[in-house]
Amino acid sequence: MNNNDNSLLAKLGSAIDSGTLNPVRHILNNLSPPDIAHQLETAPPHLRNILWEIVDPEISGEVLQELSDDIQLEFLNQMDGAEVASITEGLDVDDIVDILQQLPDRVIPEVLKAMSVQDRLRVESVLTYSEDTAGGLMDTEVITVRPDITVDVVLRYLRRFEELPDITDNLFVVSRNDTFLGTLPLSKMLTSSPNTSVREVMNTEVEAIHVNLTDSDVAQLFQRQDLVSAPVVDDQHHLVGRITIDDVVDVIVEDADHSLLAMAGLSDTEDTFSSISRTAPRRALWLGLNLLTAILASSAISLFEATLEKVVALAILMPIVASMGGVAGSQTLTVVIRGMALGQIERDNFKWLLSKEFTVGALNGMLWAIVMGAIVSVWFDDWTIALVIAAAMAINLVAAAVAGTLLPIMLRSLKIDPALAGSVILTTVTDIVGFVSFLGLATVFYS
Amino acid sequence: MNNNDNSLLAKLGSAIDSGTLNPVRHILNNLSPPDIAHQLETAPPHLRNILWEIVDPEISGEVLQELSDDIQLEFLNQMDGAEVASITEGLDVDDIVDILQQLPDRVIPEVLKAMSVQDRLRVESVLTYSEDTAGGLMDTEVITVRPDITVDVVLRYLRRFEELPDITDNLFVVSRNDTFLGTLPLSKMLTSSPNTSVREVMNTEVEAIHVNLTDSDVAQLFQRQDLVSAPVVDDQHHLVGRITIDDVVDVIVEDADHSLLAMAGLSDTEDTFSSISRTAPRRALWLGLNLLTAILASSAISLFEATLEKVVALAILMPIVASMGGVAGSQTLTVVIRGMALGQIERDNFKWLLSKEFTVGALNGMLWAIVMGAIVSVWFDDWTIALVIAAAMAINLVAAAVAGTLLPIMLRSLKIDPALAGSVILTTVTDIVGFVSFLGLATVFYS
Repeated sequence: MNNNDNSLLAKLGSAIDSGTLNPVRHILNNLSPPDIAHQLETAPPHLRNILWEIVDPEISGEVLQELSDDIQLEFLNQMDGAEVASITEGLDVDDIVDILQQLPDRVIPEVLKAMSVQDRLRVESVLTYSEDTAGGLMDTEVITVRPDITVDVVLRYLRRFEELPDITDNLFVVSRNDTFLGTLPLSKMLTSSPNTSVREVMNTEVEAIHVNLTDSDVAQLFQRQDLVSAPVVDDQHHLVGRITIDDVVDVIVEDADHSLLAMAGLSDTEDTFSSISRTAPRRALWLGLNLLTAILASSAISLFEATLEKVVALAILMPIVASMGGVAGSQTLTVVIRGMALGQIERDNFKWLLSKEFTVGALNGMLWAIVMGAIVSVWFDDWTIALVIAAAMAINLVAAAVAGTLLPIMLRSLKIDPALAGSVILTTVTDIVGFVSFLGLATVFYS
Repeated sequence: MNNNDNSLLAKLGSAIDSGTLNPVRHILNNLSPPDIAHQLETAPPHLRNILWEIVDPEISGEVLQELSDDIQLEFLNQMDGAEVASITEGLDVDDIVDILQQLPDRVIPEVLKAMSVQDRLRVESVLTYSEDTAGGLMDTEVITVRPDITVDVVLRYLRRFEELPDITDNLFVVSRNDTFLGTLPLSKMLTSSPNTSVREVMNTEVEAIHVNLTDSDVAQLFQRQDLVSAPVVDDQHHLVGRITIDDVVDVIVEDADHSLLAMAGLSDTEDTFSSISRTAPRRALWLGLNLLTAILASSAISLFEATLEKVVALAILMPIVASMGGVAGSQTLTVVIRGMALGQIERDNFKWLLSKEFTVGALNGMLWAIVMGAIVSVWFDDWTIALVIAAAMAINLVAAAVAGTLLPIMLRSLKIDPALAGSVILTTVTDIVGFVSFLGLATVFYS
């Protein structure tokens, strides 16, 4: 728990009580925009709105851009097009586009109309690309040089800039018609003699990123090659922008978050401090879906009503079989979903993976079948029920392993998000297999 | 599914059959080290060993450093100290240290003895810091300059380097006794007149990172401030190294992976393609723990044996109450664990969070209580059991919300990992509350 943060929220509370917001305004606006955004994100909704109102208008665009989508949208909904245009003035093009993509389609033209012509043209060129592609991630502010000039000329050219764009580690070398030729790393330029030509020192081994590459693939490329920035080109190999590591880190965090949140049936925009009216309906949807599957599993149980009436011990033990299958299945599912997110699962290793998970499931199935059989034979002093639970446990752990491996692959090929749909379907499978194998075997032995 | 990768694994298969590995050796060693590492990670273990043996020894250190911990250790275990020293020669100090920290303590001195004196001293200075601190993350290769020289002198000094260390966006300005004074961004240097002094253009607003800051805090700092590299200082504010974004991205990915894997009871070193002999025992442990908690929940059911004997419908319906509680609880748990990982949860907003989750739980509890009550009254044509399940559902969803919020906070204050222990304890709570409230209420109404 961070004491600084504590004191700001606490001070805000007492400032509201005493009716003067000035001390809070002072503390808040002395923080950096990302830290202000953090304060807003962790404040309960009613305090968040007060904090937002006292953010210095000059930096509110930067703060807005750092906020999570859900909260961004909350504030955007209170503004008209001109206000959005004015607040985003001066931001990087990719950041403006990120914000615009939150807005309803009918509002975007209003905002564009209120922008300066230059900004509008730049924003429009990026807006044509989908949010989750290299084009949607890129910034259009790029410094380019020609290959036939010397390093000294480049150095003199750079001195004419007030400052270089943030996170500039490379200049880009292009031909007369903007075809991408290579990168000129600043560090390389600094260690070369001023008389060498750009052509001699430029790096031509850089792979330019195509504007339609997905953002997740861009992230993997940056990670594998330890990139800080990379050029983006169109179909004609013309340079159209560049992607920087700060935006890639956001993609990495979002992708990782997505798996975690989706597996619990939460949307990516679920914020810890979202308001109740936003959170409750979203969660309700997921609970409703789960209720359907739980009723399905219970209908499976109801097939064996007669057996349950005869042997009440079955009712006591059946949740154990289902629970063990659920746990084993979710372990396999998590490993497979993570492997898919890392781009590790391919046709040639999938068979091995399936046989591995099957074997692990079978080994653990046998182990816990024996343990559970022994426990039950002592607990209920009944060898039949011990044998039945042992067999059902082994069956369910193997079924869980197979379902946990096949399900995400099948869902992906159906273009359904495996992280979101996987866990709910898997639990249904392991519940039903668990109940049916246990109660079914019991029905055979007790009839 | 990547066709390139397919073909390599497929070619390896046929190469092994035909007994000649040369074509595969050629393809493999033409890839970049990170791509070779990716091939090794996604190959089944028996093929992985063959691939590792044909990696060009000159790049095997770089490949090793890119591998996941589990596989790294597998290969390291096959080497002696001298081999480890030779394979890691030429790597960055922080990467050598990462590898050494995998080794058993008794092997490390052997490796250090086999290194060159210069390497050994640099590695030893970093080895003293724990792996999960800024010190363990940093590299010691840093270019420093004094504040009183001119930019022109710096430019001439840099030209004496063959090349600058990877990801150099700043030089560091230090006093005569190595006290950190500020950073000199390359981009700033390039836009300044050569005659200005370093003191005039250096950035003194940079916050140096203390060598003992945790790696997760370092990652948050990099994310919030969009850093590419940052200076690391000791207690005396002496510059001891620098941290670069590529290593921070690894920390971000590990932290995100940790929550995902731990919530399914998987260790951070669980690889999709780990061998069966490594995977099975780890999973067994978790299943065993879950078996204990499932038996606990079943003992709760057994308290109501008499009631179950009277009304078999209870056995059919009770898993629904437990399941809904489990799902609602894991949603809350996931949101709270993610909020904690992002440093969002503090004393001052925790009370609001608890009341929010309580309200959401209560609202959804009422909603699904009514729906489930209606369904059951039709399904079993029994108003008593409909009332009982409605009440139990509401109770369990509220209990799930409260447990899902309080548990991770309590676990953290006990220094227990909430992502790992949270889900298993939570399910136990929601199972027991679900069964006891449902069967307990039924016992009252049916006695």
